[in-house]
Amino acid sequence: VSQPNLALYSLVGIPLIQPGDNLAQLILDSLRAADLPLAEGDVLVITSKIVSKAEGRRLDLRTITPSPRAVEIAQKTDKDPRLIEVALGEAAGISRMNKGVFITRHKLGFVSANAGIDHSNVGPDGEEWVLLLPVDPDGTAVKIRAELQRATGVAPGIVITDTHGRPHRLGNIGVAVGAAGIPALLDLRGRPDLFGRKLQYTDIGLADEIAAAADLLSGQANEGLPVTLVRGLHLSPADGHASDLIRPANIDLYG
Amino acid sequence: VSQPNLALYSLVGIPLIQPGDNLAQLILDSLRAADLPLAEGDVLVITSKIVSKAEGRRLDLRTITPSPRAVEIAQKTDKDPRLIEVALGEAAGISRMNKGVFITRHKLGFVSANAGIDHSNVGPDGEEWVLLLPVDPDGTAVKIRAELQRATGVAPGIVITDTHGRPHRLGNIGVAVGAAGIPALLDLRGRPDLFGRKLQYTDIGLADEIAAAADLLSGQANEGLPVTLVRGLHLSPADGHASDLIRPANIDLYG
Repeated sequence: VSQPNLALYSLVGIPLIQPGDNLAQLILDSLRAADLPLAEGDVLVITSKIVSKAEGRRLDLRTITPSPRAVEIAQKTDKDPRLIEVALGEAAGISRMNKGVFITRHKLGFVSANAGIDHSNVGPDGEEWVLLLPVDPDGTAVKIRAELQRATGVAPGIVITDTHGRPHRLGNIGVAVGAAGIPALLDLRGRPDLFGRKLQYTDIGLADEIAAAADLLSGQANEGLPVTLVRGLHLSPADGHASDLIRPANIDLYG
Repeated sequence: VSQPNLALYSLVGIPLIQPGDNLAQLILDSLRAADLPLAEGDVLVITSKIVSKAEGRRLDLRTITPSPRAVEIAQKTDKDPRLIEVALGEAAGISRMNKGVFITRHKLGFVSANAGIDHSNVGPDGEEWVLLLPVDPDGTAVKIRAELQRATGVAPGIVITDTHGRPHRLGNIGVAVGAAGIPALLDLRGRPDLFGRKLQYTDIGLADEIAAAADLLSGQANEGLPVTLVRGLHLSPADGHASDLIRPANIDLYG
């Protein structure tokens, strides 16, 4: 029987993450328990949600007092003014708003709803938790990669993911908000095509494609499978980051 | 050693496609040669390029006479007026244009550069070939699925892909332009999260995530690996299509 060209493994046994948890160590423990030693070329895909939790990026909305501007935007968007207040603190600017919609450019550069804030948890004592994006997901990807290399001798590619809605298309998909050790934006221009002619391709959003692939496993798992091992990509190691995928405002015709 | 949760196989031995070729038969031949019988839940991902070629959707730009409108747009966009002429014939409207950029809404609903026209081939006798999108990729996906079911008893999901650039982000990624037999747009709302609460998720653009995953194999293969088998998704069969993923203009704030 044929072997797959690309294999994705959901890492099992990653516990619910608490502030201060060492994600690299938890990943190593899971790989060891699954008898899946890291191999050259492996890419580990980690949801931003557990990175944020490990960083303690949780806020209780009950502690937030919305500014007059947040109250005004909340009225226009039918949203919680405290959520808007937190989102404004995370945002570099507002991209679009409408009833039920508040799309911002995050300080990290990503254009997405509510500055990437996850607003799904209510605690047992009435807490109203929201989770902000990691502080520096590209930097965290570099650190996790280095920790895994120290422990195993193998430096995997790292992709930290979120899910975003999109202009023109329905449905959220996995995207890269952090990356290390891979060509996040892969330049195929100049490579020969089947007939030896130069391809006229533009770049490939490789880290986003990896994020979307992993979300096929992690996105439907109700947060229970936040880390995915992707094996078989045969990428050259590269110093690429998710920030490479942010379209500069001067070439974004939908700014 | 653990088994992967998701496995992607590049089908080998698919020849260069000619007008009139039977893609379902070529896929069956390749699966048989690879000893990869179709299994329930499999999804076959096919590049739109070979679907277009099988449909004879190729035009020689030397046969095209641009209209005055095409000439005017070509001047604004620094593009070949004959390419613009063909793109206008495929488009329902223009989304954005600029030097080097001509983004349209295709009659099929997709917003992408140059109405999805692929402009990379020059023939041996000076032909200047362009390849249009398939005429009805959702319908073709239904037909290929039915042919594979007749031959094997198994009805795989089908995704027909293109690669699109995107607002806000750099790099092209694989997207679904045709689909059959899967929930192309997957509604997770109402499912319980880890703690038994309802998820506040919006929909997942599942067919697009599958397209992006397969493009990790097919997109870097210089057209040599146009079909990918995706095994392990455990999707419920559904009557979903790529057209489900098109955001209606009235809720597209970037129209």
